[in-house]
Amino acid sequence: MNPYIHITQGNGGKQTQELIHNVFLKYLNHNNFQLEDSAKVFIENQKIAITTDAHVIKPIFFSGGDIGKLAITGTINDLSVVGAKPLFITASFIIEEGFSILNLQKILESMKKELEYNQVEFIAGDTKVVPKGEIDEIFISTTGIGVLLENIPTGLGTVKEKDKVILSGTMGDHGASLYLLRNSLDFNVDIKSDCNSINFVIQNLLSSCKTIKIIRDPTRGGVATVLNEFVRNQNWGIEIWEEKVPIKEEVKGVCDILGLEVFHLACEGRFVCILAEEEVEKAISILKNFEISKDSSVIGEVTNRYPSKVVLKTNIGGKRMLDMLSNEILPRIC
Amino acid sequence: MNPYIHITQGNGGKQTQELIHNVFLKYLNHNNFQLEDSAKVFIENQKIAITTDAHVIKPIFFSGGDIGKLAITGTINDLSVVGAKPLFITASFIIEEGFSILNLQKILESMKKELEYNQVEFIAGDTKVVPKGEIDEIFISTTGIGVLLENIPTGLGTVKEKDKVILSGTMGDHGASLYLLRNSLDFNVDIKSDCNSINFVIQNLLSSCKTIKIIRDPTRGGVATVLNEFVRNQNWGIEIWEEKVPIKEEVKGVCDILGLEVFHLACEGRFVCILAEEEVEKAISILKNFEISKDSSVIGEVTNRYPSKVVLKTNIGGKRMLDMLSNEILPRIC
Repeated sequence: MNPYIHITQGNGGKQTQELIHNVFLKYLNHNNFQLEDSAKVFIENQKIAITTDAHVIKPIFFSGGDIGKLAITGTINDLSVVGAKPLFITASFIIEEGFSILNLQKILESMKKELEYNQVEFIAGDTKVVPKGEIDEIFISTTGIGVLLENIPTGLGTVKEKDKVILSGTMGDHGASLYLLRNSLDFNVDIKSDCNSINFVIQNLLSSCKTIKIIRDPTRGGVATVLNEFVRNQNWGIEIWEEKVPIKEEVKGVCDILGLEVFHLACEGRFVCILAEEEVEKAISILKNFEISKDSSVIGEVTNRYPSKVVLKTNIGGKRMLDMLSNEILPRIC
Repeated sequence: MNPYIHITQGNGGKQTQELIHNVFLKYLNHNNFQLEDSAKVFIENQKIAITTDAHVIKPIFFSGGDIGKLAITGTINDLSVVGAKPLFITASFIIEEGFSILNLQKILESMKKELEYNQVEFIAGDTKVVPKGEIDEIFISTTGIGVLLENIPTGLGTVKEKDKVILSGTMGDHGASLYLLRNSLDFNVDIKSDCNSINFVIQNLLSSCKTIKIIRDPTRGGVATVLNEFVRNQNWGIEIWEEKVPIKEEVKGVCDILGLEVFHLACEGRFVCILAEEEVEKAISILKNFEISKDSSVIGEVTNRYPSKVVLKTNIGGKRMLDMLSNEILPRIC
């Protein structure tokens, strides 16, 4: 086979079939895969969660992952944070004519690995090939289907003063990593993206802690954006304690030098949650059991002093507002 | 609001929220819409069908539809042909910086209209904005979720000699329409795409006819490609009778002049099905009741004379093989 994607491989005919059989099905497959217009599956629990995302990250390979891993983890994480157990994933691939088949295989291998790790089935796909210059390399859109667990977050309406805010790991690794790569900055540091599935850690958390009010993964827009989504139109606000926020030295260094707001940097393997004070200790001890959340920390609390606001108590004792991201730090971060 | 998509509207922060609230939610919304990472839905029937497609059609507006209508009908049709009733749709939008918000609204309006007509709920979305030049205008990836009806097609394994092949309407209108537009050919004809949902007609057909073996919509690759997928590795083949195949005069004219194989032209609102001879009359009378399938016709039959082959009996009495599409007539046809 030609080592580069050919325009005929998007024709829906013979060459598309060959591409599907010789490349895609070697990675994305399962026992009862039927090449039909729709996949048929059986779901026992009737409460379903569904999420969708387009992945346009640039570059497609980065330290700690690639667009394939990101597409799967991103989808799994969106299901996990609402309290769903991910079951199925679909993906549509839009590929530029001339794209390397070897790179496509690397991406598919990453997807396969991440699907297996999470015990999630790939059930349906689609591939379009677009003439050279009409798309930059490859975009992957994924949809995830899961079943809601018995205990799901109780919702923003149940949040109370003194509830605590937990961040599950270091902040902004993904954003800082991509920022360095994209700007070819030579800081002599390798910042690895935190790109990871947070499925199992959240399942454990939800099965043990009954006072989890809300969970969200701070991707585009970062932790500050997620926190501002929480407080919007609420008569409560959130105070964040800078000294408690886990940030890698390298990430802090990059932000300081470049003037980036670390609270706006994207994470791809972290979550923020609000829960009652009495379960904080238990929650943290569960999180510390998992490698991906070993740096988890209580970073702040719910307060009635600043309705609808997120306020940062800084290391030097001052206070400042943390707003949503309102410019574009870096397009195609995910 | 600025009349063109700005790069900050893909930041996941304030501008993305504004775009979602001021544009997307005006069209794609439902009663219990919660802006969470996943939508939560309840599905009574546990046998689920799921399909996914990327839509990259060019131009995005064409005679008879646009990329928005196509994204919805394409997804609904893929669910319909396996015997599922479409319930939910998700969509992820990848948009070029500078894209006209007015055009985005037109596209969303088309999606809304088609969703309402089919009584399908839009439940989850995602929007990415890509810098100018890194994507051509807009791509929409959709996933559809449906429940399997009581009677679904019995499968290729149940096909027998003398079974009949039905095409639900005129062939190749979509492909010919796009071909004219893309090549700026002035034939003094307006060929309208057949882009339409075939949901209700198929539901009617399946509830009345119990011998439907297989249904498929002949999109990319056209009728010849679908028929070849049917016969692959089978000990039976299909004979098609040219004189019975409904083709618009204008479509035939365009194909003759340009040397296009009309059997390879895409349809976006037609289906091909195989069923037992004894139910043909009933099936055709049901199809004739619907505007979109009023030109339906029995175009051929299953035969053991040509195992794994599709043979066309031409108007002048000759016979020739109909192969799968194996070149690229027109990239970005859907």
